[in-house]
Amino acid sequence: MINIGVIGYGYWGPNLVRNFGENPDIDVIYVCDRDEVRLANLKSKMPAVKTPVDYMEVLRDDNINLVAIATPVATHYQIAKDALTLGKHVLIEKPMTLNVKQALELIELSKRQGLHIFVDHTYLFTGAVKKIKELYAAGEMGDVLFFDSVRVNLGLFQSDVNVIWDLAPHDFSIMAYLIEKEPTEVSAIGAKRLYDAFEDIAYVTVKFEGGLIAHFHVNWMSPVKIRRIIVGASKKMVVFDDLSADEKIKVYDKGIRLLNNNDNEKSSVYNTLIQYRVGDVFIPKVEAKEALKVEVAHIVDCLKNNATPISDGYTGLRVMKLLEATNLSLSKNGAFVPIG
Amino acid sequence: MINIGVIGYGYWGPNLVRNFGENPDIDVIYVCDRDEVRLANLKSKMPAVKTPVDYMEVLRDDNINLVAIATPVATHYQIAKDALTLGKHVLIEKPMTLNVKQALELIELSKRQGLHIFVDHTYLFTGAVKKIKELYAAGEMGDVLFFDSVRVNLGLFQSDVNVIWDLAPHDFSIMAYLIEKEPTEVSAIGAKRLYDAFEDIAYVTVKFEGGLIAHFHVNWMSPVKIRRIIVGASKKMVVFDDLSADEKIKVYDKGIRLLNNNDNEKSSVYNTLIQYRVGDVFIPKVEAKEALKVEVAHIVDCLKNNATPISDGYTGLRVMKLLEATNLSLSKNGAFVPIG
Amino acid sequence: MINIGVIGYGYWGPNLVRNFGENPDIDVIYVCDRDEVRLANLKSKMPAVKTPVDYMEVLRDDNINLVAIATPVATHYQIAKDALTLGKHVLIEKPMTLNVKQALELIELSKRQGLHIFVDHTYLFTGAVKKIKELYAAGEMGDVLFFDSVRVNLGLFQSDVNVIWDLAPHDFSIMAYLIEKEPTEVSAIGAKRLYDAFEDIAYVTVKFEGGLIAHFHVNWMSPVKIRRIIVGASKKMVVFDDLSADEKIKVYDKGIRLLNNNDNEKSSVYNTLIQYRVGDVFIPKVEAKEALKVEVAHIVDCLKNNATPISDGYTGLRVMKLLEATNLSLSKNGAFVPIG
Amino acid sequence: MINIGVIGYGYWGPNLVRNFGENPDIDVIYVCDRDEVRLANLKSKMPAVKTPVDYMEVLRDDNINLVAIATPVATHYQIAKDALTLGKHVLIEKPMTLNVKQALELIELSKRQGLHIFVDHTYLFTGAVKKIKELYAAGEMGDVLFFDSVRVNLGLFQSDVNVIWDLAPHDFSIMAYLIEKEPTEVSAIGAKRLYDAFEDIAYVTVKFEGGLIAHFHVNWMSPVKIRRIIVGASKKMVVFDDLSADEKIKVYDKGIRLLNNNDNEKSSVYNTLIQYRVGDVFIPKVEAKEALKVEVAHIVDCLKNNATPISDGYTGLRVMKLLEATNLSLSKNGAFVPIG
Repeated sequence: MINIGVIGYGYWGPNLVRNFGENPDIDVIYVCDRDEVRLANLKSKMPAVKTPVDYMEVLRDDNINLVAIATPVATHYQIAKDALTLGKHVLIEKPMTLNVKQALELIELSKRQGLHIFVDHTYLFTGAVKKIKELYAAGEMGDVLFFDSVRVNLGLFQSDVNVIWDLAPHDFSIMAYLIEKEPTEVSAIGAKRLYDAFEDIAYVTVKFEGGLIAHFHVNWMSPVKIRRIIVGASKKMVVFDDLSADEKIKVYDKGIRLLNNNDNEKSSVYNTLIQYRVGDVFIPKVEAKEALKVEVAHIVDCLKNNATPISDGYTGLRVMKLLEATNLSLSKNGAFVPIG
Repeated sequence: MINIGVIGYGYWGPNLVRNFGENPDIDVIYVCDRDEVRLANLKSKMPAVKTPVDYMEVLRDDNINLVAIATPVATHYQIAKDALTLGKHVLIEKPMTLNVKQALELIELSKRQGLHIFVDHTYLFTGAVKKIKELYAAGEMGDVLFFDSVRVNLGLFQSDVNVIWDLAPHDFSIMAYLIEKEPTEVSAIGAKRLYDAFEDIAYVTVKFEGGLIAHFHVNWMSPVKIRRIIVGASKKMVVFDDLSADEKIKVYDKGIRLLNNNDNEKSSVYNTLIQYRVGDVFIPKVEAKEALKVEVAHIVDCLKNNATPISDGYTGLRVMKLLEATNLSLSKNGAFVPIG
Repeated sequence: MINIGVIGYGYWGPNLVRNFGENPDIDVIYVCDRDEVRLANLKSKMPAVKTPVDYMEVLRDDNINLVAIATPVATHYQIAKDALTLGKHVLIEKPMTLNVKQALELIELSKRQGLHIFVDHTYLFTGAVKKIKELYAAGEMGDVLFFDSVRVNLGLFQSDVNVIWDLAPHDFSIMAYLIEKEPTEVSAIGAKRLYDAFEDIAYVTVKFEGGLIAHFHVNWMSPVKIRRIIVGASKKMVVFDDLSADEKIKVYDKGIRLLNNNDNEKSSVYNTLIQYRVGDVFIPKVEAKEALKVEVAHIVDCLKNNATPISDGYTGLRVMKLLEATNLSLSKNGAFVPIG
Repeated sequence: MINIGVIGYGYWGPNLVRNFGENPDIDVIYVCDRDEVRLANLKSKMPAVKTPVDYMEVLRDDNINLVAIATPVATHYQIAKDALTLGKHVLIEKPMTLNVKQALELIELSKRQGLHIFVDHTYLFTGAVKKIKELYAAGEMGDVLFFDSVRVNLGLFQSDVNVIWDLAPHDFSIMAYLIEKEPTEVSAIGAKRLYDAFEDIAYVTVKFEGGLIAHFHVNWMSPVKIRRIIVGASKKMVVFDDLSADEKIKVYDKGIRLLNNNDNEKSSVYNTLIQYRVGDVFIPKVEAKEALKVEVAHIVDCLKNNATPISDGYTGLRVMKLLEATNLSLSKNGAFVPIG
């Protein structure tokens, strides 16, 4: 049995508690929060769970194997550090930490301690993303030409970070999972239209060696909700529409053939050197299970059977590098900045 | 009767000839092209039209009132200059010229000659754009917060310019028509994925005084065709989906109220300072007439009744300023550059 | 406080228990089912609830005010009869009973006892149906010309009744709620494609005095899920798409003007006598609350404040008359049969 | 060269003339109409075409090989009879004739004369219908369980026939082409809501030996335009949405397995005897050529190379039998009537 303590019972915590609770290999022993009303509410439904206000109480219990950290971002580093120090595996909400330095420190610490860091990039456990990864890994898509993501809606869901830190980690993690190359530079252009504390609309561009370009539109002010990623590729292209009930992924047997050509051809027959192919469209059935349930089962598998985590500290770190770089680029009016 | 000569009978020329031909106030006297096969083809259908290869033949005919220039961009300036010099009104395809300097010269010349320059930004004559303009002008939308345009598809339609010059003039002209402010700076980020001569994917950001931000995604490599503009505004927001048959414009009674607040409030009650309003959606019926037909009737109205052109040399110039600035920004890896 | 016993804890029962439980004016005292495993399962989550197997135990408790009956259709009559006899208000799942005779008996009994019968036509409490009713009642739609409903999907949800009895009560109740006239005759055409016990695809047509026609397509074998009602009307038409997340109701400012004309005109100018009007489309915001929650609040209002039930025994009876008539028509190969 | 005379230059005639004109094996010699204004209009564009008012002038010309008849339905029989008698192949607009008797006579006559009757069921030449036929013929769909068609819009396009005769021939011909069985009985239920001369909304049901059921909703009063056919089948199901630009056909790897079972099983394990399978969806690319162009090429192929017509007199006859039966059923309040 894996004994778990959940720290932070705000927006996401209840989802963690529910999904941990439904897994037969897990016992939720503690749920900790600074808000005693929330804890009392939980206690009335789950009287067996212990509900301390001080998270150290959880960490000091030797029976606890894993601590899930679903507190505000600014506190992730300290709690994770304490947990790792006291011998607990950790699951940290995204974004992992406030900056790259903290993320690196936690990774170092976890290695010294022989413990796992899981970072909760839940999207990687959706049927849709798993299917795209599968198609890509099998070579069906060919080379990725561009990655274009739009995640916009009406409503401010985060008041402690800007719209990039709120929304883009989802898409950054999907990109990082799919494209196993390290990006080289990042530009982030934003505007503060609602309020002067944080960007509420932003456009992020990420460049890779070899010309691959990725772009992200995140926005808290859109009248329509859009969650769509287009992966342009040389063999088959994929469109992931997360709002579609039945057709989340469309695989287009459309592609572009890049022909080699010499200089003479360049000037004279330019147009014929690019071949577009237009074909069938395929909508694969994707697993409909709740992503967090799949993720929890995966965590159990990692802890019990030593499976390799899909989203570990390094995954979190890759996202942190992008986030940190967007901050710098924003401060330089969108200029591209290198990624460490 | 307005006597017209059309110069250039390639992709767009036939549409001009057809729409001019259907207007009762217009006689198409000449159609000129360097390709004699095209001309012979036309001649077989419209034997009365004169089909010279040399455009000066058209310009030297004193009976000609207006010359429509639908040749490659690089030739617009010289032909327009010759036409204006010889006393003809001109209709120039978009983009108007190769650069701002040429556009300014043509405007100067037309003023000295007392002649009209029309620039063929056809989108401004669609029922959809007219309706959005109407809503905005009536104050129903309030302040524009952002303007986000996506125009992507699979297929290279232009081989002599990059994807920005090919596709973005449509959206630049719509933005310029709607938002009657001058933008201050432009960033253009692109990639050459298909071929090394021209960018085939690009993201352009335009900033205005006061914080308004506009963004344009243009792309020749998208498996799905999207032509959508979101106008985020404080009172009502508009989404223009040009590919929808029946629902081109949706007007969202959703908006965001920007509250004034002092510093104390900032820290304590941040969240309550932004008010989202979610309401009904309205799909106005828009005129379904072919835009070019409406544009031709408008040109007739300008020439006969001295009406003010909706798309004149200054309209063309505003688009040229944006295009020229994107070139500079592209050469500076996407850095923002000021607009003259 | 309204004390409630729920009889039947299968597919729908848990929804009743949850919604009753969340209403502050209601105490769920009993949940009764013949399946003890289900009851044990419930007991572990809600230890305070009494879980008898024999429903009479519920009915004999003098503290119980209302009994909700969510058992198989065949048992509705007897349980409701017992409950009314013992002085309980009843909420009966749809369809109300096995036939019109039983429904009439229950109505009679409830009147003698001074008790309420609520029939659980949940759709009447959706924001969408309430909005359509509102538009119609305000005269905005004019005369209804036709009512066309399609409710199809892949999957057999009921094994004890045919597809009409399973799916059409939803649409019959919406029609009855909207159109306050009594229909005159019914035709039902069906086929048994999957199995020889019950029709799995059926088309039902209902005619009214004055020419109004309603039609219902119900189907357990459709690869696509469709839940759409078109209300054709003389002034404004409504399309209700229950599967749309944001645009459940579209109100079309399209209509048809019926002109009076004499015989001479008939032959000569037929085409001009019908005027189609094509205009704007309006998507009203509809209340997003769970319908059953609204229904439960309405039931409380009826019991506490003597409000008039939206869906009472007579509502159930109108649906029963239609269902009973479809059985007869099916047995006559789709011939129209009168409605009692 | 195939010399053609077109009789009737109203709504459809111009499409015939244009498509015949574009085929290199065809010369359009005559276009005949009773309306001299229309003819003068045509003459101005195509001066070489002869434009008699009397169709006998066309038929008496020995150089004419095929006569296309695009006149009102009531005249089809006589013109076709005259043409066949005078040795011309005929292409007849749908519906072929006013009744089955006329259709049979024309078929007889054509056989005696050794001439072809083509009936212009243009839909059979669309890429979409060809693709569905291909899938079905290859056995990929399995047994057809039901065929459900909806063809509705706002607007009266025909004033000389009811909505069934106007719209249903398209769908009847598609059904007949796909399902190569003869239907056994037909029910047609209609209403006259706009005008008392013709039904403007109708529901037609067609039954086949073995239980296959087909249903057709045709309507001139719908605020939304729908043109959708669902073919429910045992292996793969197809949805044909004619209004979709890019996704006209979706092939669902969903199906229903019909298990044999004995009586014992019936009562006890009913639910398990039906197996639903839910899988991927496939959107085949369909040929985008104009259907009439394909049809014209096919006619040329039949005349030059003796290919077998896809839509001949028998095809027309099958549609006529259904139409004639709907008339009888309408007169019997929707009762099923046998098909000859």
